[in-house]
Amino acid sequence: MQATLADLARLLAAEVEGEAQTRITGIAPLEQAGPGDLTFITQRRYAARLAACRASAVLVDRHLPVDRPALRVADPLHALIVLLEHFFPLRHPRWGIDPRAVLHPSVTVGADVSIAPYVVIEAGARLGDRVVVYPGTYIGAECVIGDECVLYANVSLYARVHLGRGVIVHSGAVIGADGFGFQRQADGSYRKIPQVGRVVIGDGVEIGANTCIDRATVGDTTIAAGTKIDNLVQIGHNVTIGAHTVLAGQVGLAGSVRVGAHVRMAGQVGVADHVTIGDHSAIGAQAGVAQDVPPGAAVWGTPAMPLTACKRLHVYTSRLGELFQQVRQLQQRVAQLEARERRS
Amino acid sequence: MQATLADLARLLAAEVEGEAQTRITGIAPLEQAGPGDLTFITQRRYAARLAACRASAVLVDRHLPVDRPALRVADPLHALIVLLEHFFPLRHPRWGIDPRAVLHPSVTVGADVSIAPYVVIEAGARLGDRVVVYPGTYIGAECVIGDECVLYANVSLYARVHLGRGVIVHSGAVIGADGFGFQRQADGSYRKIPQVGRVVIGDGVEIGANTCIDRATVGDTTIAAGTKIDNLVQIGHNVTIGAHTVLAGQVGLAGSVRVGAHVRMAGQVGVADHVTIGDHSAIGAQAGVAQDVPPGAAVWGTPAMPLTACKRLHVYTSRLGELFQQVRQLQQRVAQLEARERRS
Amino acid sequence: MQATLADLARLLAAEVEGEAQTRITGIAPLEQAGPGDLTFITQRRYAARLAACRASAVLVDRHLPVDRPALRVADPLHALIVLLEHFFPLRHPRWGIDPRAVLHPSVTVGADVSIAPYVVIEAGARLGDRVVVYPGTYIGAECVIGDECVLYANVSLYARVHLGRGVIVHSGAVIGADGFGFQRQADGSYRKIPQVGRVVIGDGVEIGANTCIDRATVGDTTIAAGTKIDNLVQIGHNVTIGAHTVLAGQVGLAGSVRVGAHVRMAGQVGVADHVTIGDHSAIGAQAGVAQDVPPGAAVWGTPAMPLTACKRLHVYTSRLGELFQQVRQLQQRVAQLEARERRS
Repeated sequence: MQATLADLARLLAAEVEGEAQTRITGIAPLEQAGPGDLTFITQRRYAARLAACRASAVLVDRHLPVDRPALRVADPLHALIVLLEHFFPLRHPRWGIDPRAVLHPSVTVGADVSIAPYVVIEAGARLGDRVVVYPGTYIGAECVIGDECVLYANVSLYARVHLGRGVIVHSGAVIGADGFGFQRQADGSYRKIPQVGRVVIGDGVEIGANTCIDRATVGDTTIAAGTKIDNLVQIGHNVTIGAHTVLAGQVGLAGSVRVGAHVRMAGQVGVADHVTIGDHSAIGAQAGVAQDVPPGAAVWGTPAMPLTACKRLHVYTSRLGELFQQVRQLQQRVAQLEARERRS
Repeated sequence: MQATLADLARLLAAEVEGEAQTRITGIAPLEQAGPGDLTFITQRRYAARLAACRASAVLVDRHLPVDRPALRVADPLHALIVLLEHFFPLRHPRWGIDPRAVLHPSVTVGADVSIAPYVVIEAGARLGDRVVVYPGTYIGAECVIGDECVLYANVSLYARVHLGRGVIVHSGAVIGADGFGFQRQADGSYRKIPQVGRVVIGDGVEIGANTCIDRATVGDTTIAAGTKIDNLVQIGHNVTIGAHTVLAGQVGLAGSVRVGAHVRMAGQVGVADHVTIGDHSAIGAQAGVAQDVPPGAAVWGTPAMPLTACKRLHVYTSRLGELFQQVRQLQQRVAQLEARERRS
Repeated sequence: MQATLADLARLLAAEVEGEAQTRITGIAPLEQAGPGDLTFITQRRYAARLAACRASAVLVDRHLPVDRPALRVADPLHALIVLLEHFFPLRHPRWGIDPRAVLHPSVTVGADVSIAPYVVIEAGARLGDRVVVYPGTYIGAECVIGDECVLYANVSLYARVHLGRGVIVHSGAVIGADGFGFQRQADGSYRKIPQVGRVVIGDGVEIGANTCIDRATVGDTTIAAGTKIDNLVQIGHNVTIGAHTVLAGQVGLAGSVRVGAHVRMAGQVGVADHVTIGDHSAIGAQAGVAQDVPPGAAVWGTPAMPLTACKRLHVYTSRLGELFQQVRQLQQRVAQLEARERRS
């Protein structure tokens, strides 16, 4: 990129503070920016790192005092998004329908699709307009892929997976594999319960790399519109997730978990089967949730408890040594009282 | 599907309760069933959900009172399996040996195999009868794949992996990657320990999507017959797992762990290297196991302890605030006793 | 392999104890070795397992008494590495540039590369000498792959990933997928923050199967030379990791985490965003790290605390039942003292 602060200010409807002709050739975070870079402060708690940063200018909110030329906006993160979209538009390779892709004759595709070499698409699948499918991705029979979906390399979709419009599936994700269902037999062996349901994913969902979403035993595993799922997440059979929920990396949801809308789960959370997680709740990192979580609640810990109780518990446990000592001292003092009483 | 309750009763040797001519067009779980569907109650604790369910009929045990036409059987889950196998038989695509699959000339294959486009099979591999290999799967040199194995799309088998008969490997699973073995050098760098052993997997094992099973350093990583492994599980080098064991999602077993037969591990359990887990034991979700677990034991927590001790610990920790308060009150009361004693 | 102990002693500059003409036909660990095998004791704590082992000879340190012919060396693990490298040299398939690989015309490759069928390499990528790329691996635009890198089957590299010299990437690993960055909108939906940075990986790094390393939002996600990463690890956007650090299986690092050099993290550790982990520190299994860790520290637990404090805490919690009982007894004794005082 090549721009002056003044150019960027016009793009962002920002105010320039300091030299408007400062030349900007890149955008970089506080820790990595050098001369020529515009850096940014989107979270005030990292503002102190600006002092050591060599960026030529900074994108910042309206009020934080800074030590160099600045672009001032009401919402720096929003402005950063606008900048990145403008200067680094995402461009997918344009393969058309590559002749080395294998599409069953019954497959239908929309306009302007881009299907890479070594993609395989099975019978009855339907792809919408402007869908992009990277190399090595497999789309099973009767899958339905909405307009403008992007499936990166080496994704695997089993049969009858439905993706809404604009779904992004990152590499290595597996959608529609068999749920983990077995019946224990009298001899201790396990018999497979056929997994014949579907996976249905709403518009604008993003699915991280190597994440797994299992098909339902019967019925559907469903993820509602706008939900964002990070890498290496495990979503069991018959799970339902509401809209605009966020699951961070390595979260695991066992079978038949019901997650509401606008829920936030931090990394490595685990949820036991059949648990219900209410709308707008928040689950702290590594929590183990085996009981229902009410709407709006914040929980943490294993077993999960209200966040405030969990923090209080951490305070208590940090003072356990002290408590043991206090009890020992009390035992001595009481013994002395008892001894003196006996003597008197 | 199109059937009457009477038809299904014949298939299942079930008793019909209510209208035997009720038409059934689908099977669905309590939360998703609608008119025309047969739903099912395989766990009594969810029976209360039937009231709000719009299914036309229910598959249920011999005794639970229900509010609509029913199929009554001794074992509803077994009956569900029979129904699903009958109405939704699993059909794999039939590629024969697709000309776009690359088989080294020394590869041998059994009868009626189905090998998809863009599969690559290296020198000396041997595949049994009726093996199915989906697109993008890689089978390394000298692998041995038993009869009726199914390898879904984008599976990676390194050299010399042995799969017994009827093994199912879900998409993205990686079997035989190098174990994580390094020797720390004097300068703090790490030198790779060659990983030259094998992975040997028994009959009827099922391996979940994106699960990783590392090859042994030397010798074998072994998984005995009938064991079921969920998605995103990590199994280190030289691990041995007995028969009919179940590992839920995101479990991690470090190197040289020995797991017995008929063990059940819940989600996100971690087991430290060289630990032995006895037959028929059960490990609770997210447990961290660094000590051997005796046969038949149930353990939970980090560090793992007997399940009853762990539950008791959770009760104790939930009452810690109370305990701190009790100790504070005792301190006051003892101080008062001491003060009064001094005064008297 | 076919050798005598005397042959192996020459290779290793080892001393032979016992019959130097003992014939060795394989190398196997204590638990799996049989007649003809050389076994090895690299950790003294497993030495007792030798008694039950049927190996014909043992590789062992200079001093441990053993019950059979032995090769004695100062460093048995180093000697094992030498043996394995000598008798089981790693041989990759030699595809040259397979005609079924798809290389954009602008791709440049070094000497003696081996590029398998069904590899796709996008515009502007550059591969060094002796690079090996297994089937189904995807290399995005403008990636730079150093000399002697090995990319196993079904790896996915997004655009602009840089790998140093001799990097090993195991199957299913995904490098350069979008970081997990969204801005919450007024209506509760999430807007994607473009992820336009790079991933830069140093010489000699090894990356485990199905591990995910996200690209930076802007700037770089960086992993310095010699660092070893196990399977199913999640590394968020803008993470930086120093040299010669070891991350065990299923570790998760949230965005912008800074890990120093020579750090060791055990399995399933989670680190919250923006945390700094000092050089030469050690993080125990399943720890949850939300605060900075000083250089050289050893921490464990959730929330992570100094290892000694964590072990002490485990002792305290194991005695909580006792403590509750002691407090109950104290309450009784104090009540009795108070009652007797009132009466007197």
